[in-house]
This record gives sequence, C-alpha cells and structure tokens, in this order.
Amino acid sequence: AAPFALIAGPCQMESRDHAMMIAETMKRITGDLGIPYVFKASFDKANRTSLSGKRGIGLSGALPVFQEVAETFDLPVLTDIHNEEQCREVGAVCDILQIPAFLCRQTDLLIAAAKTGRVINIKKGQFLAPWDMKNVAAKVTESGNPNVLLTERGVSFGYNTLVSDFRALPIMAETGLPVVFDATHSVQQPGGQGGSSGGERRFVETLARAAVAVGVAGLFVETHEDPDNAPSDGPNMVPLDQMAEMLKRLQALDQLTKG
Amino acid sequence: AAPFALIAGPCQMESRDHAMMIAETMKRITGDLGIPYVFKASFDKANRTSLSGKRGIGLSGALPVFQEVAETFDLPVLTDIHNEEQCREVGAVCDILQIPAFLCRQTDLLIAAAKTGRVINIKKGQFLAPWDMKNVAAKVTESGNPNVLLTERGVSFGYNTLVSDFRALPIMAETGLPVVFDATHSVQQPGGQGGSSGGERRFVETLARAAVAVGVAGLFVETHEDPDNAPSDGPNMVPLDQMAEMLKRLQALDQLTKG
Amino acid sequence: AAPFALIAGPCQMESRDHAMMIAETMKRITGDLGIPYVFKASFDKANRTSLSGKRGIGLSGALPVFQEVAETFDLPVLTDIHNEEQCREVGAVCDILQIPAFLCRQTDLLIAAAKTGRVINIKKGQFLAPWDMKNVAAKVTESGNPNVLLTERGVSFGYNTLVSDFRALPIMAETGLPVVFDATHSVQQPGGQGGSSGGERRFVETLARAAVAVGVAGLFVETHEDPDNAPSDGPNMVPLDQMAEMLKRLQALDQLTKG
Amino acid sequence: AAPFALIAGPCQMESRDHAMMIAETMKRITGDLGIPYVFKASFDKANRTSLSGKRGIGLSGALPVFQEVAETFDLPVLTDIHNEEQCREVGAVCDILQIPAFLCRQTDLLIAAAKTGRVINIKKGQFLAPWDMKNVAAKVTESGNPNVLLTERGVSFGYNTLVSDFRALPIMAETGLPVVFDATHSVQQPGGQGGSSGGERRFVETLARAAVAVGVAGLFVETHEDPDNAPSDGPNMVPLDQMAEMLKRLQALDQLTKG
Repeated sequence: AAPFALIAGPCQMESRDHAMMIAETMKRITGDLGIPYVFKASFDKANRTSLSGKRGIGLSGALPVFQEVAETFDLPVLTDIHNEEQCREVGAVCDILQIPAFLCRQTDLLIAAAKTGRVINIKKGQFLAPWDMKNVAAKVTESGNPNVLLTERGVSFGYNTLVSDFRALPIMAETGLPVVFDATHSVQQPGGQGGSSGGERRFVETLARAAVAVGVAGLFVETHEDPDNAPSDGPNMVPLDQMAEMLKRLQALDQLTKG
Repeated sequence: AAPFALIAGPCQMESRDHAMMIAETMKRITGDLGIPYVFKASFDKANRTSLSGKRGIGLSGALPVFQEVAETFDLPVLTDIHNEEQCREVGAVCDILQIPAFLCRQTDLLIAAAKTGRVINIKKGQFLAPWDMKNVAAKVTESGNPNVLLTERGVSFGYNTLVSDFRALPIMAETGLPVVFDATHSVQQPGGQGGSSGGERRFVETLARAAVAVGVAGLFVETHEDPDNAPSDGPNMVPLDQMAEMLKRLQALDQLTKG
Repeated sequence: AAPFALIAGPCQMESRDHAMMIAETMKRITGDLGIPYVFKASFDKANRTSLSGKRGIGLSGALPVFQEVAETFDLPVLTDIHNEEQCREVGAVCDILQIPAFLCRQTDLLIAAAKTGRVINIKKGQFLAPWDMKNVAAKVTESGNPNVLLTERGVSFGYNTLVSDFRALPIMAETGLPVVFDATHSVQQPGGQGGSSGGERRFVETLARAAVAVGVAGLFVETHEDPDNAPSDGPNMVPLDQMAEMLKRLQALDQLTKG
Repeated sequence: AAPFALIAGPCQMESRDHAMMIAETMKRITGDLGIPYVFKASFDKANRTSLSGKRGIGLSGALPVFQEVAETFDLPVLTDIHNEEQCREVGAVCDILQIPAFLCRQTDLLIAAAKTGRVINIKKGQFLAPWDMKNVAAKVTESGNPNVLLTERGVSFGYNTLVSDFRALPIMAETGLPVVFDATHSVQQPGGQGGSSGGERRFVETLARAAVAVGVAGLFVETHEDPDNAPSDGPNMVPLDQMAEMLKRLQALDQLTKG
C-alpha cells in the first residue's frame, strides 16, 4: 500500500495571509518528509454549537485564497461544502470536496458533489455504523464519480463524547475506497464546553498512531500556530510547531505497517 | 399543562388522495377524542439509507396538497425542510417547519426557517445531549422567532440502534419550549436492514406511554393504512386502524399526568 | 395485572434503630396506600467505588435486624448477597435474595441463591442486553427455583452514565417473570464523583413514572431521612418525607395502566 | 519502555495434555522471538452466558497442571479467580492472579487477592471509565500489594457489542501501573449468539496493532489449535499456528514505538 497522505490545515480559513503561512509551513514540513500533502481549510463553519461561534471568511472570500495556495505551493486543496449550490463553484477551484459528517446522508448534496467530478471525501456520521458507509459512498459512485474517500471521525458514545472504533477502518476499506482517519475531530467533545465543543489535543497522536498501525490511506489533522486562541476547534488542533516531529513518528509507523 | 397535541401522518406524502385519506381519518379520530391535531407528511426523504430508496412526490407536488389538506379539514400542517431555499415556499403554506435531526446544527437552515415566522419544530440530533438543544433553539429564537418546538427522537446507542432517554424531556423543557416525543423514529433501527432502516413498531406505544407519563406537550407518530408496504419507515409506523385505541389510552394517561 | 409492589429502604443498613425507623415509616405509608411493601437494606456494600467508602454493619449485625423488622412490622425483607457462603444464612431470614448487577452472570452465586428456595431478585447487569436476561434467569429456574424477579437498573451509556431503556421492560417480561424497575440506581452516575458515585435524584420520579406507565410488577426505590448525609447512594435516594406523595402519584398511574 | 510481555493460552484449561501442548508451543514461539511469556488458562468459566456452557476442569484439577507447566517450561502462570476462598490456594501456585472484569469492583476479592502478595491483573469492567480504575487499583495497593496490572478489554457500546477506546491506555498508565491490552475479549460480542457470546477473530490483530502502537506493557491473547471447536471463546481465539507470524509483526511495531 502507498504511504499515507496528509490532509492538514487550520480548522477555518481565517485570512489570506494565515492560510498562506500554514500552507507554506506544512508544504515545507511534508516536503522534507516526502509525505503527500493536501491543504485543508473551511470557508464556513456551518454547524457551530451556538450562534455566536465564528463562521469564517465565507465562500467568495475563500475561493481566491484556495486558488492562490494551490498555485503558489503546487498543492491540492480541500474544503467542506454544505449545500448543493456550493458544489459547482467550489469544484471549480478545489481538488477535494468534503461532505461534513452531519450531512453524510443528504442525498442531493452527495449527488451534486459527485457531479463536479472532483474527489469527494465523505466524513462518517457520528450516528453511523462503519458498514453503513457503503450505502453512503454508493450515492456518489452510482452518480458516476468513483473518486471517493471515507473518513472516520469518531462515533457517538454517550453524551458529549466520541469514541474511535478502529474496527471501522478495515470495515470501510472493504468498499475498496481509500480510508482516512481524522485525528482532530475524533478527540472532539461535542458541545462539551456549553456554548462550544471541547476536545483533548493530547490524544491526537495517540489515536493517529493507532490508525496508522491498523493501516490508513490518509490522515486528517488540523493545525494552528496558536490553537488556544483559534476561532474554532482550538482544543483539538495540534500546534504547528509540533507537526514535524509528530509526522516523523507517524511516518515511521506507516512504513513499518505497510512493509 | 395543556393536553398533548398530536403530530401524525404518513412518513412520506405518497399522493394527493393518500394524504387526504390519512388527514380525514386522523381528523375524525382526534376530533372524537378532542386531541389537537397537526397533519404531517414529508415531501422529500432527503437522507434515505441508499440511493434506491423512494423519496416522495417533491416540493411542487406536495405544497398544493398541504394547502388542500389544511383548507378541507381546517388543520395545521407540518413538513420537514432540507435547505434554506425551501423555507420561504414551504413557510407560505405550512404552519410548522420541521428541522430534521441530522440537520439540527445547520445554522443557515435554522435562521432561514426562523425568518418565515412559522413554528419551527427542531428534532434533536441522534448525536446530541439534551442540554445541547438550548444552543440549537437559540439559533432560531435569537433570529427573532420565539415559536420553537423541541422533539426527542432517540440518541445513538452503539451501532444501528437508538435509545430513548426520558431524562431528556424535563431537561429540554427547562428551556421553556414545548417538548415533543417522536415515538416513531425513536424505535427506528438506523441502517438496520442493510439498504434501509429497520424498526420495532411494537415499542411505539411503549415509548409513547413513557413519554406521556413523564409529561410532553406533543406526540409525533407516523401512521399508514398498510405500513408493511409503505415506501419508507414501514417497520415503525402504526397501522391507521390502531391509532384510535392507542390515542385513547395515551390521552387517559396524559389527563392523569397533568391532573 | 396486579398493582406494583414496592421494594424500598435505605441503601445500607446503618443501625438497628435506623432500619426500624425506616421500616416503620414505610410500612405506615404503604399501608395507607394499600401498596404491597418489601423492606430493603444492604448489610454490605461490597463494591464501593473506593476502599474508603463505608460498607455497612455486616452480615452478623444485620440478620437479627432483618428478623426484627420482619416480625415487628410483618414485612417481607430483601437484601443483596455477594457470595455463595452468604446464601444459606441470609436465606434463613430474608424473603428475597438479591443478586447485584455486577454479579448477575456469576453462575455459582445464582445456583446457591436458587437452592435457598427464596425469591431471587436478579439485577440486570449494566453491560447486558435485556434479551440476555433469559439466560441469566434460567441459571436459577433450571436449578429448581422458579421464583425469580428481574430488575432493570440502567445500562452503560458512555462513561459514568447510565440510560434506562424502557423497551427492556416488555422484553424481560416475555420471560414470564415479574419485572421490577429500580428507579434509584438508574439515575446513578457510576464513579461520577471521582472517589464515589454521583446521581440525579430529581429524575427518580421521572423514570419511575415512565416505568409504571409501561407496566411493571415492582418498583425499587431507596430512601433516607437525610440523603445528603447518607453513607452511600445519597445523591440518588429519595427523602423519606417525599415518599408518600410520590407513591400516591405512581399508584394512580399504575391503576390507570393496569385498568 | 520495556518490550511488551505476552499473556497467552487457551480460554479454559481443557486437560493436562492440552495445557502442556499449548504452553510448550507458545514457549518455543516466544523464545524464538525473545518475548517474555506468561502462560494463561482458566480453571473455571464462572460466568458463562448460559448454564449449559462448559466451565472447565476446576481448581483442584488445574493447580497441579499449572505447577507442571511452570516447572517444565520455567514459565510464570496466570489464572483468574472468582472468590476470596480461591485466592490463597491459587496464590500458592500461580504467579499472577487475575480479577475478572465483572468482579473488578468486588472489594473483598481484591483485598484477598492482594494479600497473596502475587501480581494482580485487574481487568477493567465493561461498565467502567478508564479514570475509575485508579480507585480499583488502590483497593489492592492500599492493601499492601503494589504489584498490579491493569487490563483494557473493551467497554459496553450499545447491546451485545464492545468498543476499544485507546485513550484508555494512556489514561490508565497515568496510575504508574503497567497496562495490558486484551485483544481477545475486546472483540467479544457478549451474548451475541443467544446462548453464548460471539466474537470477531479477524479484528484481534487489528486492535492489538492499535494497542501496541499506542504503547502497552503487555498483550493478552487467547489461542487454541482449533478455535472453532474450543469449549469457550472460540470465535475470538487466534489459531495457534498463526501466533508466531502475528507476534513477529506486533514485536516490530513495539520496537519502533518504544524506540
């Protein structure tokens, strides 16, 4: 199997300069290690815990930045979409369209995303069994687009907690589709801080190690130069200056796993 | 407290005649019992387990039927919406706009629904704690619409199963908003039949009884004259000819509970 | 169906005088209401969260008190047992031997309890499905003792939390055995206070109402004149001076339910 | 950190010859690889799903075999105990006494086991949070025995299913005690076959890999020359002739993890 690819970037696109800084840093880090890299950012946090949560710079603000990131650093870029209307516009710029976990059963969104011909990364709903993702993926593939990634990001486990079931990785891989592990949202504590979600950053590498040892096509990790002051998902983002060392360890594990 | 209101109807709007037949029957049954009644049907099953599941007659087909049902039988009508664009059109006809459980955190949908001024019934996500619904409700109320209902419909419990936590009813009631119990989807087994969801109809009354004894403002029950041949949610719909007796028992329980 | 019986008393037997006081009070309350009453107390809390938790007055201290309670107030008495050796001695005095939830799969304990010929109340393990209790019950009935009660007391739901699945009541009733709902331990938060378990007393009546409306042969409720200063399970015991009113409401619900 | 030790053997001790055969085979395999090895077998399956499940050869039959295994192959031996009375007798022969998961909160059993001075391996209850195990361990250490192992074996996740939460490994390691991962019982499906438990053998290595990559002091794996015809836990035991290759892969992962 091929080495894992890395999908990484800030939770939300905060500004052109911030996106360029993260992309440049991650391009350098992954280039040094020889890890295939996809830049990730969200232009809109469409399902914040509460109305007062910051949502990001929006689609029209973000698309030129994605284009600049892609061209300047020669990188594929990924972002998440929230309705059918966004698909064509985002698909014109971004290489990978991501379906948010809460929306992974919305048929029209999946079909509209499929029609762009781009790679579609579907996050597994927190309410879904891994074997149910084959039906979800089929909504895209039967719409004529075979380029689907499936991402595990934790399953509901009581209230305000997720658990990562690593049996889900081989089960989803039985579809023949590449499986990605999202180490950032898997340590999220949904709604766990009252008006926003909490998280346990210290377990990002723990769960990423488990995933890599089991075998994954990709890892998804959000990163920020100052997570504690980030506008969203701060509690579970990895500090940018810790990414290189963590990736080096994960890469060694991946090489051993894949022989 | 006021007696419970009933939200009932077929899972999906199958045809004009079918909707009229169900509405007429339920109007008669609830009229005999003196139970306030809201007709419910879905014009689009937007998140079927698989692509091959029937989705219903669509928005343009359904709206005239909702209007006819409302006028012919002098009934409030409810349907669920799936994106912002539908809100205005549906809001022009339907009295209650329902936010599906998977979409209960989608801020723009909640705001667009709120702007219609209609009553908004928010289903609690299978991935949410009951105390997290106050943030969800606030997305509507802080958008200027105080008319919000909160509906419990089960929470994820392992794979392919939901459990109804009846502590959720008083916890959500602390918001001051009316709380509804959806006895149909609470007995759903998501994805439990491979390509479609299963369900356990025999527990609908069990859970409805528990909810009424705890105290609810409303009950949500899907019904069909021939559930085993219905295009969706057949396994958990109550046969139409059993509704009258079940409601009679639930009404007696409600009267005792509310003194 | 017969009206529900009540199993009630302090979590642990604190002293002869305390047990007599509770028994006398509960005898009077239930006598006024015509509710069949079983006095309950534990002589040993054998599985406290931590070593420093108080364990009670022990078997030899407790048995004469059970006898005095039984004779003075003409009451059946129930206590829980923790190993085979205790069965004979306890069985000589107590009418009902209770198998703790953690121990409900211990074959030798079930057989030894069965051999006493007493009624055996088996608490359903927090780790068990309701349909698995038929195998558990069979360990007693196939040992020649048909007098078995099955008690629901919540099932693990994430960490430090239980949830009450009311589908479990009719499922366990399919065995033909009487089903009891333990409203005290169902609101327990296991280990939820670090060195001891927490609980949410305010939901005792909520869940008891749900259970009675669904239909139960018995209710199990722990009570104390000063729960906040009780040596164990204080957070989920009902104050003694609130029992009469709560039981009156539950009795009305039971009468309606059972027609 | 030291390389992982392996606790392995048949689920139950079937006969002297069978135990000797497994011990000899595993001694050779682990000797070739340089993996510290502990022979494991149960003399009594005290909590079978149903009364008809085979329970093993019993304490008096098993102890001489443990002694012979220990002496013949110069191996430490482990078995599980079920009541206080067994502790002294088992402690005279076996190096490690194991507390079954269901019994991990039984104070007297923990104290009696502690008093033997032997190493005590406590399985984490399927109903417990990882942070609650420090209180459990303290029942042994505060009884004067510092030699405690903590074993993760899955946590309840809905009905008839367990999930392995790999955050539990570092959380339990914060106690300073060695943490073991039981890859056999973590893939158990409790009660999943009606009258007995099911399991998914194909995930044993999946979960073992995840555990080793996260970092463990020990692995626990049950093995049998013909699992499909074993008297218990057949569905989740690893065939004896597959152990060498699996251990080789896990050892490489362990060496990389521990640098």
